[in-house]
Amino acid sequence: MTEPLNILIIGLGLIGASFGKAIRHQGLAERSVFVLGYDRSQGVAEQAVALGVLDQAVTDLAQLPRIDVIVLAVPVMAIGAVIDDIGPLLGSLQALTDVGSVKGQVVRTVRERLGVIPACFVPGHPIAGAEQSGVTAAKADLFEHHMHILTPLPESDPAAVQLITQLWQAIGADVVEMSVERHDEVLAATSHLPHLLAFSLVDTLARESENREIFKYAAGGFRDFSRIAASDPTMWHDIFLSNKDATLKVLRRFQADLAILEQAIEHDDGDLLHTVFTRAKSARDQFTQMLAERQKN
Amino acid sequence: MTEPLNILIIGLGLIGASFGKAIRHQGLAERSVFVLGYDRSQGVAEQAVALGVLDQAVTDLAQLPRIDVIVLAVPVMAIGAVIDDIGPLLGSLQALTDVGSVKGQVVRTVRERLGVIPACFVPGHPIAGAEQSGVTAAKADLFEHHMHILTPLPESDPAAVQLITQLWQAIGADVVEMSVERHDEVLAATSHLPHLLAFSLVDTLARESENREIFKYAAGGFRDFSRIAASDPTMWHDIFLSNKDATLKVLRRFQADLAILEQAIEHDDGDLLHTVFTRAKSARDQFTQMLAERQKN
Repeated sequence: MTEPLNILIIGLGLIGASFGKAIRHQGLAERSVFVLGYDRSQGVAEQAVALGVLDQAVTDLAQLPRIDVIVLAVPVMAIGAVIDDIGPLLGSLQALTDVGSVKGQVVRTVRERLGVIPACFVPGHPIAGAEQSGVTAAKADLFEHHMHILTPLPESDPAAVQLITQLWQAIGADVVEMSVERHDEVLAATSHLPHLLAFSLVDTLARESENREIFKYAAGGFRDFSRIAASDPTMWHDIFLSNKDATLKVLRRFQADLAILEQAIEHDDGDLLHTVFTRAKSARDQFTQMLAERQKN
Repeated sequence: MTEPLNILIIGLGLIGASFGKAIRHQGLAERSVFVLGYDRSQGVAEQAVALGVLDQAVTDLAQLPRIDVIVLAVPVMAIGAVIDDIGPLLGSLQALTDVGSVKGQVVRTVRERLGVIPACFVPGHPIAGAEQSGVTAAKADLFEHHMHILTPLPESDPAAVQLITQLWQAIGADVVEMSVERHDEVLAATSHLPHLLAFSLVDTLARESENREIFKYAAGGFRDFSRIAASDPTMWHDIFLSNKDATLKVLRRFQADLAILEQAIEHDDGDLLHTVFTRAKSARDQFTQMLAERQKN
């Protein structure tokens, strides 16, 4: 038997802790895994051991056993400092990955801190989340039937890409590859812009309404539409600053399209409204069907 | 014992049929009810009897037994023609109400068709719905713990207002009164604008993406945000044409606020983004708490 694959997770929030729990639960087909974890908040790593997220808590990044894989699960803005800490380890790693929502920013940070992209580095982003956050919200099945996007770089070692792919596939994720630029455009459109619209609308209504009285009259449609406005303000402020260009591009397309609907309402152009709503309903119905099929697999 | 209260529901879609099912299920505290129903689609009223929605199907609005209350549950744009049909009955009714999403348009239509607002008329709007539609989707508990907004007019007979209030309270709704203008503003903000944004965003993304491939990468946040884009295009095109002024007013406030966020992203103004997101999260968290408390009562 080969030695176990030693995986170090840095950052034990919902995503990092769920990855640990899942990989300990599922293992790898041909090799045992040993999951270590570090979090800058004191006691979180010990709590993670108690919760079954980790095999071992790490209290000092300067004193580590042999590590094969590092998963960076800290906020995008915190990656730079962690890279400095783990720099000395990079030469002996089989693979380094991350889970950040904006890939361009992560790649820029790594390049700035190290001067080069190390061959072990394979940036990634799981398209999964939950309303709760933190280590106590960790779920072993969080990534099952969810996309995991890898954005390998020209410098990435194919063996590292293969290993990271295997790890995410082992815990049920559907792994796809695309370029860093495409990832950031896709996420700007499907995640970042919807969050901006939800935050913006909830704030517009809250400010216009005395004691937020208007929300008393909101129904299920508004409840679902505005759920993402309860997301973490700090994390989302990071995301918009990190993915500025792609977000602005799709935001401006949206603003232009919304202005066309505004004009249609003003000029009683029912045909245009009906055409757009029908096209949107068709796309949304197709999306519903796709989600249902993915759950069946 | 007094005679039963004869209630005629015109239009047996989700809302009309659920009202019938609920009122037959709950009854009134001191008086028995007898529920009649009419739908212009052939066979729907008979189907409604079979489904427990009605006591009796009505096949011809020109040949009716004694009716005490009429509930108009047809689309807003269809109310005019129905008013012509039931005109001869209005003098002997105790109350006439409707369930339209836009109250100004309904009131204008009634006034245009009849020359006056009859004293029995009490406009109303239940803040409830479901993803399914039609008579087969009828649910006896659809209105439980939901707001029902009445917009009584200066001409409305207080006894009619009281009777309509009792009927909706009997089936679990939380009845509130406001002016027609306020209703249309509140709904423009909490329902009509969110629907416009969801339709618009889904259409923007669908048109920009070859084979709608981009939706493959959408997660739970987008799923919830865009659910209302699957709503009926015809009904919603009616709503925007009917509630033009209030919708344009709140849409333009939203566009101005969104432009401020756009500028903040462009100029890396993280403080402004953080402030707006924090305010929005606070309002959304309060809304979540309000919904939870309403369900407990």
